[in-house]
Amino acid sequence: MHLDTPYYAVIFTSTRTVGDNGYASMANLMEEMAKQQPGYLGIESARDNIGITVSYWKNLQAIADWKQQTEHILAQKKGISDWYGSYKVRICLVEREYSFSKEN
Amino acid sequence: MHLDTPYYAVIFTSTRTVGDNGYASMANLMEEMAKQQPGYLGIESARDNIGITVSYWKNLQAIADWKQQTEHILAQKKGISDWYGSYKVRICLVEREYSFSKEN
Repeated sequence: MHLDTPYYAVIFTSTRTVGDNGYASMANLMEEMAKQQPGYLGIESARDNIGITVSYWKNLQAIADWKQQTEHILAQKKGISDWYGSYKVRICLVEREYSFSKEN
Repeated sequence: MHLDTPYYAVIFTSTRTVGDNGYASMANLMEEMAKQQPGYLGIESARDNIGITVSYWKNLQAIADWKQQTEHILAQKKGISDWYGSYKVRICLVEREYSFSKEN
C-alpha cells in the first residue's frame, strides 16, 4: 500500500478484557464501515500482548467524521464498557515513508 | 505512557520470512539499544499476520541518529537479507492523543 505523503495515521493501541464478548464480529464490522468512509486510505492491525491498529486517512476532517459515525459511536461505548482495559489514540501526520519488498 | 504532544512516532510494519534465523534475539537487543538513544520516548509492538512496531521519539534528529547507529545499521542489513519479506517505515508527527483506562 503506497500512499503519497502527507496524510494522517491514527494509531490505536489497546489492551483487551478477558473473553470475546462480541468484540471480533464488531471489529470486523467497524473495519468494513471505516472502508466506506470518505477519506479512508487503509488499515493495518496486529495483536499479541497488546493490540495495535493503525488506520490511514486523507485529512483530519475524515478522522473526525469517522469518530462521529453513528455505529462507530456505539462501538466506542461498548469498547469502554466491555472490550478494552485501556486504550490510547494518537492522531499523527505522516510526513515521510519508505519501504522494502523482496523480489520473488 | 503519557507523552506531551507534539512528538514523533515511527510506524514500522513488516512481514517476516519463515523461521527465526536470529531475529528474536536481535529484536530484543535493538529494543534495548533504542532505549539508550537520546530522544527515545517509548516503543510498542504486536505481531500476528503482520508485525507493527511503533517507536516514539522527541524529534526528527533523534530518529535520524538511531537510524545511523552502528549496530542498528547491521541489524537493518540483516533485516533486508534474512528477516523481512517486506516492510514499510512511516515517520509521523503525533499532533494529539487521548486515552482511556479502566479503574481497578
